[in-house]
Amino acid sequence: MSEETGKGGVRSVQLAFDVLERVAGADGEIGVSELAAQLNTTKGSVFRHLKTLVERGYLSQNPQTSRYRLGIQAFVLGRVAASGIDLLSASTDAIRDLREELGLTVVLSALQGRRLVVVDTQLGKSSLEIGVRTGTELQLHCNAQGKVALAFSRQLNVEQVMTAGLAAITLHTVTDPKVLQHQVSEARRQGWAAAIEEETLGVSALAAPILGINAELIGTLALVATVQYISRDIHPDQVRALKTAALRASWNLGFKGEFLTD
Amino acid sequence: MSEETGKGGVRSVQLAFDVLERVAGADGEIGVSELAAQLNTTKGSVFRHLKTLVERGYLSQNPQTSRYRLGIQAFVLGRVAASGIDLLSASTDAIRDLREELGLTVVLSALQGRRLVVVDTQLGKSSLEIGVRTGTELQLHCNAQGKVALAFSRQLNVEQVMTAGLAAITLHTVTDPKVLQHQVSEARRQGWAAAIEEETLGVSALAAPILGINAELIGTLALVATVQYISRDIHPDQVRALKTAALRASWNLGFKGEFLTD
Repeated sequence: MSEETGKGGVRSVQLAFDVLERVAGADGEIGVSELAAQLNTTKGSVFRHLKTLVERGYLSQNPQTSRYRLGIQAFVLGRVAASGIDLLSASTDAIRDLREELGLTVVLSALQGRRLVVVDTQLGKSSLEIGVRTGTELQLHCNAQGKVALAFSRQLNVEQVMTAGLAAITLHTVTDPKVLQHQVSEARRQGWAAAIEEETLGVSALAAPILGINAELIGTLALVATVQYISRDIHPDQVRALKTAALRASWNLGFKGEFLTD
Repeated sequence: MSEETGKGGVRSVQLAFDVLERVAGADGEIGVSELAAQLNTTKGSVFRHLKTLVERGYLSQNPQTSRYRLGIQAFVLGRVAASGIDLLSASTDAIRDLREELGLTVVLSALQGRRLVVVDTQLGKSSLEIGVRTGTELQLHCNAQGKVALAFSRQLNVEQVMTAGLAAITLHTVTDPKVLQHQVSEARRQGWAAAIEEETLGVSALAAPILGINAELIGTLALVATVQYISRDIHPDQVRALKTAALRASWNLGFKGEFLTD
């Protein structure tokens, strides 16, 4: 038993999930050599883990190419997980109506420990599709969702983010801690935050918090669009619709707060 | 490196997935002692694996109860897997229309190696809901999907199933290998199979194959209902609608075959 769960054991579990996630992140199928190179380990080591993952159904191997992709078991696990994530069902109607009303892309993120992870993206109606891939971990200092998370979560704060450094992702990213702290305080006061071209030039976002029964942050709801639709001159209608949708999801999660007005 | 991927390592990976799947299968949250008992191992061993799974986001721990449930990362993995499973997108419209037309529960299963796994269930319109849980591995000898799989897959055959034994699940389960072989041949000839109360008394199913570009079995589509709706006196309309839906999904997967007529 000690062998099974010793240091080598847990390291092996980490490698198994590294392999699984590299396959998940690959564009199409991926082979054993690429995986070994990416994970800086031997082909033999990767192969043994691939074999286990295939046996358990988390990966499947294409018999023609010998390359790997995710398997049915990964899908099944996700289905079960989805049914247990209250945030998803609580937000479904609000997201649909918000997208319908404004025609913009709506992005739902969940707070997980200290990570803010995208769990749903409903593309807007414009022919130019702007989305954020499910599973993306959002940086906190350079987007609207991150500012809202910093404003409403008890687990997150600007000091923490500062120690990681406020990297300038675009020329509009806030890199001054005082400015960021001010924006976070404003977000807390207003119930929403904006990030105009702070993460990608030409793309902006507005975000609002989704809160739970104890007013704790569960996730964020965001509108994401090009600067043609979300610019420095922020539309009050967009803010109002976004906040209404986020509050509706919050109510579904048991939050008892009132409608936040500007 | 040898330690990491040695026997202990891979055993540890197996245990990590055992833990993950027990949590997924639990009704609500589950604690470390229950997991250790179910997996016949020590609490310490289970705990180390739980910790790793929480760190990586596949599980989350309820701070109030200290019990575990699936995490966001499990959901994210499933989302990525879903987008790679052609069978799901190929079948979506056919399943929706079939349910709409007949009002019965429609169950989609995928062949994975030698396992037939339920990947989607759309409940029928009756107030009594009959479904099959996503992730269920179907036995092959006692249901309609299994007979179709035996009839159309190159990886599966009756001899194999026989070695595992044809257990009598209900008094209507086929336990005679010759009868099963005959039914499988009939399924191959007709393009569909029935199982009347063979797995659960009062519940029956009809199934048809979903085939891929090389006419290989990708999955099965089934109608599941009480004997009030699917009985020994099989409705030709149900068979026709089911086969049409399965063929439509097959065409989406590149199958070039013709419409199978009775």
